[in-house]
Amino acid sequence: MSISLDGFVAGPDQSEDAPLGLGGQRVHTWHMGEPQNEVDERVRDELLIDRGAYIMGRNMFGPVRGEWDRDWRGWWGEEPPYHAPVFVLTHHPHDPIEMKGGTTFHFVTDGFDAALAQARAAGDGDVAIAGGASTARQALAAGAVDELFLDIAPVLLGRGERLFDGVADPGLEPLEVLHSPLATHVRYRVGGTAAAPSGAS
Amino acid sequence: MSISLDGFVAGPDQSEDAPLGLGGQRVHTWHMGEPQNEVDERVRDELLIDRGAYIMGRNMFGPVRGEWDRDWRGWWGEEPPYHAPVFVLTHHPHDPIEMKGGTTFHFVTDGFDAALAQARAAGDGDVAIAGGASTARQALAAGAVDELFLDIAPVLLGRGERLFDGVADPGLEPLEVLHSPLATHVRYRVGGTAAAPSGAS
Repeated sequence: MSISLDGFVAGPDQSEDAPLGLGGQRVHTWHMGEPQNEVDERVRDELLIDRGAYIMGRNMFGPVRGEWDRDWRGWWGEEPPYHAPVFVLTHHPHDPIEMKGGTTFHFVTDGFDAALAQARAAGDGDVAIAGGASTARQALAAGAVDELFLDIAPVLLGRGERLFDGVADPGLEPLEVLHSPLATHVRYRVGGTAAAPSGAS
Repeated sequence: MSISLDGFVAGPDQSEDAPLGLGGQRVHTWHMGEPQNEVDERVRDELLIDRGAYIMGRNMFGPVRGEWDRDWRGWWGEEPPYHAPVFVLTHHPHDPIEMKGGTTFHFVTDGFDAALAQARAAGDGDVAIAGGASTARQALAAGAVDELFLDIAPVLLGRGERLFDGVADPGLEPLEVLHSPLATHVRYRVGGTAAAPSGAS
C-alpha cells in the first residue's frame, strides 16, 4: 500500500473522475509512469510477480454506482498486470471476466473470508491484497496478513482516507527497507515481535 | 521526532504520570534504556551532538500546572544530554537554570520566533527542535526547518496526538534512511523537491 507520511492512502473528495481524491496521486508518484529511479522500478516490478491470486476491493476494480456497468473490464486494458486470478469483493454478482495474460476477474459477494478461501484455492503462490485500503483493513482485521508492504511517500495530504483507521496493532516488525526520493519502501512482518528470530517467508 | 506508523507522537490521555499517553512509550522503545542494536544506538548518539542550541516545548521540559514548580530542573538529572543552551517555550517567566555539562535552560515567554532568534544568537551550530510535537509544528509552520528526522516506530496507537495535524506540506525529500527492528529512521530535507540536486546542510 502506498501511503502519505501522514497516513493517507487517498485525498479527500474521492470521485469517479478522481479516484485517489484531491492530491492523492502524489502518494503514487513513485510507481506511476516511467520509473524515475532503479529502486522504485525494482519495487514496482516485484509487486506483481509470483502471486497465486489477488483480492481486490470493488472501488479499485472500477467505478460502481449500484449495478455494474456490464461492459466495464477494469482500469488496466485487455492485459492487466496481475497474470493470476483476481477476486473482487462486491455486493453485485457478475460473471467472471477472463482477460489476456492469465488474469481472470472473479466477483465475490459473500465477504472477505470467502474471497480469501477462493483465492487460496485458486493459486499455488501467495495471495496478495491488490487494494484498496478498505480491503487491506479487512485483511488485517481477519488476521490474514503475513507481510505488509508500505510505500511511504514524503508528502502530507492533511485530509483523506487513512489506511490504519480502526485497525488494531497487528504486531509489526520491519524486515527490509528500500528508499528513493519518492518513497520509503518498508516490508513488515505481521504478527512478529522485534525479539523473535527472523523467519518471514 | 519519534512517531508511530499511524502518525502519533503520543497516545491518548497524556498526564503528568504518563506524559506519553497510553501506549505512547512504545513509540520510543528504540531510544529508551540500553540500545538494542547498532543502528538505534548510532541514531540516538547523533541526535545530540554538535548542536548550537535547542528549542523545547513547555511540556517536554516538565509538568506545568499554572506556575512553575520553582525547584523543577527538568527530567534529565543534573547533567542533561544537551550540552548547549536550551530555550523553553512557556507563558511563565523563570530565571535561567544552569546545569552541569554545558546545558542551560532559558525560558522564553514571547513565542517561537523569539526563541528561534535567541537560539540562533546563542550557539555556533545548528538549532535543533528538542520537541515536543507542538513545538515541531510551530517550527514547520514558521518555515524554520531545514531537515526533519523521523523515527517511525512499527506500532499502531490508534489514538493520541498526531505530529502532522494541521501542518501544510512543507516539501519533503528523503535523504537518508536507516532501520532497525524498532524503528525506520528517515532524514528528510524540507523545502526540497525530488528533482532538485542534493544540497542539504
